[in-house]
Amino acid sequence: MEKVVNLAKRRGFAFQSSEIYGGLASCWDYGPVGVELKRNVKEAWWRDMVLTRSDIVGIDCAILMHPRVWEASGHIAGFTDPLVDCKVSKQRFRADQLFWAAVVVDGKTVGHVSALESDATEAELQNGAEELKRKKAIQGKLEPVVAKDFTQAAPEEIPLIPSPATGEPGSLTPPRSFNMMFQTYVGALRDDTAVAYLRPETAQGIFINFKNVLDTGRVKVPFGIAQVGKAFRNEINPRNFTFRSREFEQMEIEYFIAPDADWQKCHRDWIDAGLAWLESIGIPRALLSEYAHPKEKLSHYSKGTVDIMFKFPFGVQELWGFAARGDFDLTQHQKFSGKSMEYFDEAAKKKYVPHVVEPSVGVDRVLLAALCAAYTEDEAPDEKGKLEKRVVLRLSPRLAPVKVAVLPLVKNKPELVAVAEKLHAALQRRYVSFYDQSGAIGRRYRRQDEIGTPWCVTIDFDTLANGTFTLRDRDSMKQERIDEKALFALLDEKLC
Amino acid sequence: MEKVVNLAKRRGFAFQSSEIYGGLASCWDYGPVGVELKRNVKEAWWRDMVLTRSDIVGIDCAILMHPRVWEASGHIAGFTDPLVDCKVSKQRFRADQLFWAAVVVDGKTVGHVSALESDATEAELQNGAEELKRKKAIQGKLEPVVAKDFTQAAPEEIPLIPSPATGEPGSLTPPRSFNMMFQTYVGALRDDTAVAYLRPETAQGIFINFKNVLDTGRVKVPFGIAQVGKAFRNEINPRNFTFRSREFEQMEIEYFIAPDADWQKCHRDWIDAGLAWLESIGIPRALLSEYAHPKEKLSHYSKGTVDIMFKFPFGVQELWGFAARGDFDLTQHQKFSGKSMEYFDEAAKKKYVPHVVEPSVGVDRVLLAALCAAYTEDEAPDEKGKLEKRVVLRLSPRLAPVKVAVLPLVKNKPELVAVAEKLHAALQRRYVSFYDQSGAIGRRYRRQDEIGTPWCVTIDFDTLANGTFTLRDRDSMKQERIDEKALFALLDEKLC
Repeated sequence: MEKVVNLAKRRGFAFQSSEIYGGLASCWDYGPVGVELKRNVKEAWWRDMVLTRSDIVGIDCAILMHPRVWEASGHIAGFTDPLVDCKVSKQRFRADQLFWAAVVVDGKTVGHVSALESDATEAELQNGAEELKRKKAIQGKLEPVVAKDFTQAAPEEIPLIPSPATGEPGSLTPPRSFNMMFQTYVGALRDDTAVAYLRPETAQGIFINFKNVLDTGRVKVPFGIAQVGKAFRNEINPRNFTFRSREFEQMEIEYFIAPDADWQKCHRDWIDAGLAWLESIGIPRALLSEYAHPKEKLSHYSKGTVDIMFKFPFGVQELWGFAARGDFDLTQHQKFSGKSMEYFDEAAKKKYVPHVVEPSVGVDRVLLAALCAAYTEDEAPDEKGKLEKRVVLRLSPRLAPVKVAVLPLVKNKPELVAVAEKLHAALQRRYVSFYDQSGAIGRRYRRQDEIGTPWCVTIDFDTLANGTFTLRDRDSMKQERIDEKALFALLDEKLC
Repeated sequence: MEKVVNLAKRRGFAFQSSEIYGGLASCWDYGPVGVELKRNVKEAWWRDMVLTRSDIVGIDCAILMHPRVWEASGHIAGFTDPLVDCKVSKQRFRADQLFWAAVVVDGKTVGHVSALESDATEAELQNGAEELKRKKAIQGKLEPVVAKDFTQAAPEEIPLIPSPATGEPGSLTPPRSFNMMFQTYVGALRDDTAVAYLRPETAQGIFINFKNVLDTGRVKVPFGIAQVGKAFRNEINPRNFTFRSREFEQMEIEYFIAPDADWQKCHRDWIDAGLAWLESIGIPRALLSEYAHPKEKLSHYSKGTVDIMFKFPFGVQELWGFAARGDFDLTQHQKFSGKSMEYFDEAAKKKYVPHVVEPSVGVDRVLLAALCAAYTEDEAPDEKGKLEKRVVLRLSPRLAPVKVAVLPLVKNKPELVAVAEKLHAALQRRYVSFYDQSGAIGRRYRRQDEIGTPWCVTIDFDTLANGTFTLRDRDSMKQERIDEKALFALLDEKLC
């Protein structure tokens, strides 16, 4: 993971937000190469999910929404994390990420230990328990610790559990709910009437525009509404680079179906479409898996949720969620707004509130997964033919920030430069082309390898003679002679 | 204007945000057609300003930024509107939009009147003055009112000016500064250390990443950094549909030049580039004008600001600002962050903090200008040859949400439908194509006219015989026979 983060920073994929001021925790800025990669992720998704499907239309809603939206959706009451304060250190922890265990010697509890969630939580607790036993000079057999999170602590146990900040018990408060929506005030007043929230998801914007789309979009159930846009969650422990951040971008669809339609099939079709799409943008199937949320952990209205998981270097984590949400959201908005959310089905000659299947994926997560999957180190010959380490991003051509680099062999031959510039201009009409004339050709190839450019075209003296140039493939490093027409045909085939 | 707003709502360009809950003042949601138009505005700008220029790179920064950014930029101290409270009605007004006048009869002041800014402010004040004279039964000659805004009221005049809410004097407070940035809290605490703001402009994200881009972007002065993204301003009186809204999207460039470079030329070049770009997306030059900000109204660091103005139906208003900002921003961030913002110029062999020219334009405003410029009513024959009113959006093909509509003449001939579907699928590989088989052909044309689709292709029985179809032009309504190859060549020429 460290290697991916370093490359991201070194080559201008992503920087910490407000870095010169010490950073704003868990917000990220995309650099010159990153912004193109991000644009390509969104464009590929929009093309495949909206533009080339006749059953899906898009919308683009404001981030600031009426507060009643979040009452209806349940976010004001329920979009919370359990938080624990340490009264001594003034630090805060998520209760479900604060682990503790009783220290038991010969069947008798002699103290408690705690540790924050990490790859080594269990080991830390075990070590802590051993140290406690040693410190207190207790004889006997230490039993293996049984880790629990802080939400599982009984009220009488809370004062006994040490704070991870101080190591001493007595300073942790019972967990309390903390709403993760960012709050602000709209208009000149700062009172309850002026409260608004930054949307924590793009989905609700779709539900509240359901009727507007029905009235203007020429759509018929089953159909979907898609949205791409920023969402905000005031995470207490954001982490893993861009994986979990406070400001992120979502790509969501609400797919509306009849109440008596086969929702399991629709749900399965969407999961399969998600897997196929991820493969189509170069994320190998072998790194993807499915996780079905256990029935007992689902919300009361949920019929089923399955996540597509990706094997990140820091663990297998959620990439894309597929939730069958029934008619919960539309019904709630119907109730809270007093506006009908019913659809008249002309074929079935009846009115109903449609049910919904919701595929929801984060742009930043797809981008990070693509980067992790693409990062490769192999060997390539340097100028003198000696093998040296090569870093290469094997991004799919659709995602690559630059599609083709045009490189005149040397920069001090005006004939070569003129041909190269002309080719670059012709390519730019359709594709993102990058022109680079400075440095040894091997170093120029290496720079393109690091940002994932699939093809390099070198203009040399043979070009002047016969109009062909060297096409160099990023992955195989093979070179072949090709003319302009064949180059355009190749790009057209791979990119359209 | 009303016609444009009605069409926007009726055909799914834009809706008021959170409409089912009574709306959130001055935020807007783009519908199925509007989202494509907006995407096309941004894509055309990005292509022309970033991808096809070798001197500009893009970035994409977080909306939430470190509060020190806004101290350095001057927004915390100076990004304010003067506000006036009415203590009785609890309403708030912008002081510069609240007008008042003394009521003078025979050279003697007998009272005061007030009115909010509108097209009829002067007339309202004059009427108010006449009514006051009548009510008080004062004889003599009423002098014409001289309207002033509330910032021009002397302290002793303030208690005499009636509130526009109640009509009675005595309840208005002196103007006070109100910061227009939306404030929120990041993290679990709600105190001064956790304050953050939603960015009121995208420009500062560019400045604080200047060094990151220098280090990774392979750029040399002169060069520019571009960004497209949301910004937020807590406007007290937002208005004119999407023209001035609280949440909007900007397209900004900071173009860095040497301190001794000819900034006037650079500034002028950018204004010309702006005009040319607006023309290239179909906004007629005749509706555009320039406005140079008077020297005495510029900030102390500003060398000059020129706006490109557009003739909206509600008046000539700012569309695109071009500010020569010197080295103010980079120098401020250098001072506040302690990080050097110097650039080493290899050609000139010297170090300096670059100066900057800033072209800044709103996505929503360009979109609105394009809609206003494109909206046309003419006449077209109906099914029976009778002329009827036609609403047509003469959008440039690059901006049009749908590029081409594929229409089988009738939907109950499988041969026609099969050919149409095949053509639609082929078109979709490259262009946004819309398939529509229901309704009379004239009505289908009219629907496409209303959303600005430049070309319609009708598949009829001749198509089966000779492979040609009818190409119908939106603007001229002329029809010609064309084959698939010629259609692709036309689209390629007009859209690439």
